[in-house]
Amino acid sequence: MENKEMGKETAGASAMAELDTIFRPRSVAVIGVPLSRPDSVAMDGVDSLLEFQFSGPIYLINPRGGEFKGLKVYPSLDHIPGTVDYVISLLPARMASELVEQSARKGVKAVHFLTAGFSEINEEEGIRLEAELVQTAKKTGVRILGPNCLGIYCPESRISIMPQFPKDSGPVGLIMQSGGNTVDLVNMTMWRGVRFSKVVSYGNGCDLNESDFLEYLTDDPDTKIIGLYLEGVKDGKRFRQAWDRAVKEKVVILLKAGSTEAGAQAAASHTASLAGNDAVWDALCRQSGAIRVHSLPEMADMLVTATFLPRIRVKNLALIGAGGGSSVMLTDEFESRGMRVPPLPDDLRKRIREFTPAAGNIFRNPIDFSQAVFEPEKQIKAMKLISEWKDIDLIVGFHRTLYYRIMTGEAKRQLWHEMADSLLQGAKSVSKPMAIVVEPGAVPIEAAEVFSVCQEFVSCGLPVYYSFISVANALRLYMNSAF
Amino acid sequence: MENKEMGKETAGASAMAELDTIFRPRSVAVIGVPLSRPDSVAMDGVDSLLEFQFSGPIYLINPRGGEFKGLKVYPSLDHIPGTVDYVISLLPARMASELVEQSARKGVKAVHFLTAGFSEINEEEGIRLEAELVQTAKKTGVRILGPNCLGIYCPESRISIMPQFPKDSGPVGLIMQSGGNTVDLVNMTMWRGVRFSKVVSYGNGCDLNESDFLEYLTDDPDTKIIGLYLEGVKDGKRFRQAWDRAVKEKVVILLKAGSTEAGAQAAASHTASLAGNDAVWDALCRQSGAIRVHSLPEMADMLVTATFLPRIRVKNLALIGAGGGSSVMLTDEFESRGMRVPPLPDDLRKRIREFTPAAGNIFRNPIDFSQAVFEPEKQIKAMKLISEWKDIDLIVGFHRTLYYRIMTGEAKRQLWHEMADSLLQGAKSVSKPMAIVVEPGAVPIEAAEVFSVCQEFVSCGLPVYYSFISVANALRLYMNSAF
Repeated sequence: MENKEMGKETAGASAMAELDTIFRPRSVAVIGVPLSRPDSVAMDGVDSLLEFQFSGPIYLINPRGGEFKGLKVYPSLDHIPGTVDYVISLLPARMASELVEQSARKGVKAVHFLTAGFSEINEEEGIRLEAELVQTAKKTGVRILGPNCLGIYCPESRISIMPQFPKDSGPVGLIMQSGGNTVDLVNMTMWRGVRFSKVVSYGNGCDLNESDFLEYLTDDPDTKIIGLYLEGVKDGKRFRQAWDRAVKEKVVILLKAGSTEAGAQAAASHTASLAGNDAVWDALCRQSGAIRVHSLPEMADMLVTATFLPRIRVKNLALIGAGGGSSVMLTDEFESRGMRVPPLPDDLRKRIREFTPAAGNIFRNPIDFSQAVFEPEKQIKAMKLISEWKDIDLIVGFHRTLYYRIMTGEAKRQLWHEMADSLLQGAKSVSKPMAIVVEPGAVPIEAAEVFSVCQEFVSCGLPVYYSFISVANALRLYMNSAF
Repeated sequence: MENKEMGKETAGASAMAELDTIFRPRSVAVIGVPLSRPDSVAMDGVDSLLEFQFSGPIYLINPRGGEFKGLKVYPSLDHIPGTVDYVISLLPARMASELVEQSARKGVKAVHFLTAGFSEINEEEGIRLEAELVQTAKKTGVRILGPNCLGIYCPESRISIMPQFPKDSGPVGLIMQSGGNTVDLVNMTMWRGVRFSKVVSYGNGCDLNESDFLEYLTDDPDTKIIGLYLEGVKDGKRFRQAWDRAVKEKVVILLKAGSTEAGAQAAASHTASLAGNDAVWDALCRQSGAIRVHSLPEMADMLVTATFLPRIRVKNLALIGAGGGSSVMLTDEFESRGMRVPPLPDDLRKRIREFTPAAGNIFRNPIDFSQAVFEPEKQIKAMKLISEWKDIDLIVGFHRTLYYRIMTGEAKRQLWHEMADSLLQGAKSVSKPMAIVVEPGAVPIEAAEVFSVCQEFVSCGLPVYYSFISVANALRLYMNSAF
């Protein structure tokens, strides 16, 4: 609260311009490209620029020169004819400082060090190299991203961490201290319809850090939702100011790792972070209306939720799908989290019973449509009726993989897809927000079928969850933490 | 405690013999087989008997007679020449009572009603039909399984609920009130190496109920682990006696659904159960050393754990795998549940550093072997050294799907399998209990690769978990709830 006035300020225009260079460079040079190992993991940056058709010049640098993947290779930074905004470095840690000096001479604005082997290894040499790098950066004015990180994914400017990331943009911005978690989170959520404005994996954050990125994404009109994976924070006071401003303007979701003592020590080893007191983080989120999650799958659920659902208060739910035991357990998940699954009013029950038999179906709420497999049109009709029930804020539909398992043989498996389709058609006809649960498959063929069904729901703008616990937890965190 | 003396009793010999008829019938008749719909879901019982090569006679009954799937079809029960131990009925609810009368005349010991449409629909007709069924059963002495359930899976006697269930036996017995959850749970765990002695889906439990099955499995020498999915209990006092005896002799894992008020109402709709006070169930588990879980995936994790790991107290863990952010989050999961991830002793760290570089690897605990992709033999060597660390009770290895995602292209994907293999070879050489985490794939091809890797771990007798939360939660519940 004491930062209210400061919170109204935006980040300085020059800082914003520097970050623009990183997220939207006009030209990129990649140095230390392992020409002899075109399949190397380190090649993803180059492959991504090519796959995304980066619009500016891409310069590769290797003392050998020549040509590589259709691009000219320059022996050094100095040999490049045009200006270079941004350098991605795959060189070993010991060459970092010298590269920054060279970059300064060339007029480079920022260097991203993919390379590890700095302070995070907690050995004398690594600590020294990082200190030297920071000093050189300060002296020259070249900004540093990393080291020990995967860098930038910004579909709009055609830069990506992985070639297979989505090429279209969306409202989610990510500030990620771990590169692995960045790849994981984008992969987990891209198939569930989440799209991104700007994503940064910033590793040790020796120069540009979480506060810079949080300020930048707060001012970015394309970003509506900000997800953070933090292991620690460099400057608590500055971060708090950036945070206060961010939570006022965006949906902010925090995954703070290193929340236990040994976790904090692991964080120190991973990105040389000071993790801070976990209770402070809890209080910060609670007071500011930010959402705190505790695992990557939970973060993924939250990004899906924030992408597709309005942030309304959910008191009462209707649950609809097939499976008696499922209904009981799904009800427990919601009720134990403070939401209600009220009984179907008598008149509504009567109206549904007029056109459906009771055996194997339960018309109470949860509405168990086990028999929908034989009569999809009745489920669609029932869903339309249920959506007119005025006490209900949101509908959760579930399509259980177990019915795929029960239905052995081709003809029966077709029925499983028809069940999904009747739920989908029903979802299209309801007037309330709706969430879908589809459980994962245990064997490859199930996983493939589940995936195709999920894609159908996603393409209709429905948020898809993989378990009863996930959907109940996500709705509670997203819907009811703000009220 | 007041039941101590009674707790020492075993179930009556005659009750045991009656249940033996159900789990190990000498002959089975299936009535109400939908001959015109050989692909019908209701056909799974017949398909299972054929697939499992049930050793006794299988009689199909349909007024039309003839032949079906290579089996003779009899017009009625009376037309069957030999004795019939056990009848599986697919007839509508209204014919149930009459079938029991017929069965009694034929000398049948027990009838399993797959059919729904009894008390669980909470309508006058269904309630009346079930009451009538119970009365007829009492009068005739024929025992009833169900109604509204999927019945028996007992690999030893070659009876199954689904044709694709495993044909080999194992130590896990299941008492399941929901048929869908039974199919789900067996499917979820069979690929993780869990095998079963006797499984029963008993639905409404109008005659034989959870207490009968709990007594039976407690006396069954082939069952070491008992998993229960209950929506309610018919006779609290009797169940308590059965429970007290079971927890003394077996590992007992309880999933009690209907734990919230609306959940209890859903349970009433599903299997006409009275759910009881949830706090009572909590206390019962805590006092008796039974393990209470709250979801089907948690139950699956617990069955995997109880199958593969000793029930030792776990204070200290070593964590090993690739991925920095992973290490931090995995550490948090264990530490927040009261287990410790202590730092690697200096001498051990030095010995590992002698043969491995530090950049990109963290030798602290968690031990991050991101570089193992290039040097698997070093990871194996390091794991052997770590397993000699005497403070450690258990080792958790993690193989992240994200590395599959990072490694685009065939050659790099091969590396991902080599990383898994080095973890597997390492696991074989360690002298401590070990658990493995492999995360699910987001797209079908990933899911297929993850599945093949998981099968390799499972075939070496390793428990496999699908998330950091799962493994930490399962170890806490299983290992540290008993001490």
